[in-house]
Amino acid sequence: MGAGEPLSIEEVEVAPPKAHEVRIKIVATGVCHTDLTCMRELNQSQRAVHPFPLVLGHESAGVIESVGPGVSKFSTGDKVIPLFLPQCGECECCLSPKTNLCNKNWESNLQGVMHDGTSRVSCKGKQIHQFMSIGCFSEYVVVPDISVAKIQEDAPLERVCLLGCGVSTGYGAALNSAKVQPGSTCAVFGLGAVGLAAVMGCKAAGASRIIAVDINKDKFEKAKVFGATDFVNPKDHDKPISKVLAEMTNGGVDFSLECVGNVGVMRDALESCRIAWGTCVIVGYTEAHEVSVPPTHFLLGRTLKGSYFGGWKSVESVPRLVSDYMNNKLMLDEFVTHTLPLEKINEAFDLMTSGKSIRTVIKMTD
Amino acid sequence: MGAGEPLSIEEVEVAPPKAHEVRIKIVATGVCHTDLTCMRELNQSQRAVHPFPLVLGHESAGVIESVGPGVSKFSTGDKVIPLFLPQCGECECCLSPKTNLCNKNWESNLQGVMHDGTSRVSCKGKQIHQFMSIGCFSEYVVVPDISVAKIQEDAPLERVCLLGCGVSTGYGAALNSAKVQPGSTCAVFGLGAVGLAAVMGCKAAGASRIIAVDINKDKFEKAKVFGATDFVNPKDHDKPISKVLAEMTNGGVDFSLECVGNVGVMRDALESCRIAWGTCVIVGYTEAHEVSVPPTHFLLGRTLKGSYFGGWKSVESVPRLVSDYMNNKLMLDEFVTHTLPLEKINEAFDLMTSGKSIRTVIKMTD
Repeated sequence: MGAGEPLSIEEVEVAPPKAHEVRIKIVATGVCHTDLTCMRELNQSQRAVHPFPLVLGHESAGVIESVGPGVSKFSTGDKVIPLFLPQCGECECCLSPKTNLCNKNWESNLQGVMHDGTSRVSCKGKQIHQFMSIGCFSEYVVVPDISVAKIQEDAPLERVCLLGCGVSTGYGAALNSAKVQPGSTCAVFGLGAVGLAAVMGCKAAGASRIIAVDINKDKFEKAKVFGATDFVNPKDHDKPISKVLAEMTNGGVDFSLECVGNVGVMRDALESCRIAWGTCVIVGYTEAHEVSVPPTHFLLGRTLKGSYFGGWKSVESVPRLVSDYMNNKLMLDEFVTHTLPLEKINEAFDLMTSGKSIRTVIKMTD
Repeated sequence: MGAGEPLSIEEVEVAPPKAHEVRIKIVATGVCHTDLTCMRELNQSQRAVHPFPLVLGHESAGVIESVGPGVSKFSTGDKVIPLFLPQCGECECCLSPKTNLCNKNWESNLQGVMHDGTSRVSCKGKQIHQFMSIGCFSEYVVVPDISVAKIQEDAPLERVCLLGCGVSTGYGAALNSAKVQPGSTCAVFGLGAVGLAAVMGCKAAGASRIIAVDINKDKFEKAKVFGATDFVNPKDHDKPISKVLAEMTNGGVDFSLECVGNVGVMRDALESCRIAWGTCVIVGYTEAHEVSVPPTHFLLGRTLKGSYFGGWKSVESVPRLVSDYMNNKLMLDEFVTHTLPLEKINEAFDLMTSGKSIRTVIKMTD
């Protein structure tokens, strides 16, 4: 696709994997809001970092088609989830329990290429970038072998693909980043797939009260399925949402999670936390604006932090999350509202922007 | 004093303590930057919260002169430090290990009165507010008994008064709020008494590298005394200070502490933290502006928090800090650059604004 245009479907060539790369036949890809953000929000200087044209898509599951030289952990036929966050296992970050980031491939990941600075995708002889080094709105992708989670044989790929981004991100933001405590009061802002997964994470952590906040009241029914106990539509109130939540909770929530990617909502989420120990976690992604806050909010004991891929160390955690789904410890089916073929990719984006879908899964092959 | 004017010295009447209050003969008071902020920075709406006229001063030590009805923990002659942060021991916050805030007297504290809404200080028949419910640029103060730390008999009051605010605040910000880890790399922005105490806290926590940052290079010698290992003057560099620190530390510091109260410096301090796990603690106080930050700073693993009175539970911790000083585990003498009588209080403020003093102690009585 080019910048700002609808997605176009093109025949592309996907080159064989080079050393320490694998080629994956993609079976299913979830349509995530970050794909949309990349299409519509980025300005020129940000597009210099995420160059176009590119193949979008970063939340998928598939089967190893072939492996490049030096790949020892994967074989043709393995079921896998490609990961936009690698886990090399060797860098300072991978060796630290304090983070799930990995120092490897950071630049190339942003630029949508492999570690050698080139993409494996071309169209009419021209190199096409792979969004977040994946670009899985494509029948085949090549990714580095440190960016692949091998999952169990019986996992349904049209469901576990959601663990490649949205569900892992929201669920882990509550568990790993906010570290929601049993008996605590939480607020989740934004009830897309990430927000609903955050609700599910708050419940799994034992929160006693989970307040779901969205300006689209049609989302509340689904939020209840994932464990929300209270529902607030900011449109129903004249006063700031943080005041509404403070009144509901005797001063504010213990934990709030921003799952929208809007700097105004980020401030609301921070202000909805109680003084003394309230923690606000930013999960939503935006590069368009800055969040502005009075510093006294922090002096009085609030903490603001962020979460990337839910704080999960990717290669080792995703197979466990798949297993949790298979053992009914984690919901996935409930996120999927639509399944469409690749030809209807633009329809999937329209469903998302109109608020009618939670997650649309694109089936890449019949 | 009135708003915006130099301090004037007036004869005031200090009424006897009411129930659960004590009257303290103040022996020594440190001149803290927050007194100056209150004098010069607050706008009209903020002055509605901190009403004038008032007696400034909130960092002092003295001797109990008399106790009101119901006071059981103090007797005439006890050496004490009045506390702007109470510890009632009974509220939700006091009962939680997660915070040092106390729910008691929050409003009255801001308004410079006792819990019953009145001050114990009057001048020519008119009520005068007590800054932070203390107002210890006065020979006598009345404060609630939950806002008093009883300290050991042999403590020199013209030194331990610094534990009533500045030194406790900076030292605890490193130890309790940032939770600086052994072997870590730290940066302290602003080398006033609070910043130097933060340097001392980083050293006590076992930091291997402590980078002292100030635009006044005359502060560096003193910072070395407290444990700083590196010294950076932003004026010596064309590039942003966060870039300078990133180059010195292979990507940024583990912990940064903002001890200025300037929103630009707060952003610098946050950006000087490394991605993945950098923690920035705001210690400086300002209500004049907002701090503005790109949300991606948080997504990549930085945390922004604040510190109030260094995270110390006040009544129980201050006596221990006094004891640490008496046992040479904590420096205080090194902070005191000037000692002046009350008549020279405006001179003390001039010394502070000109950057010539670290801490001036006002001896209230001869």
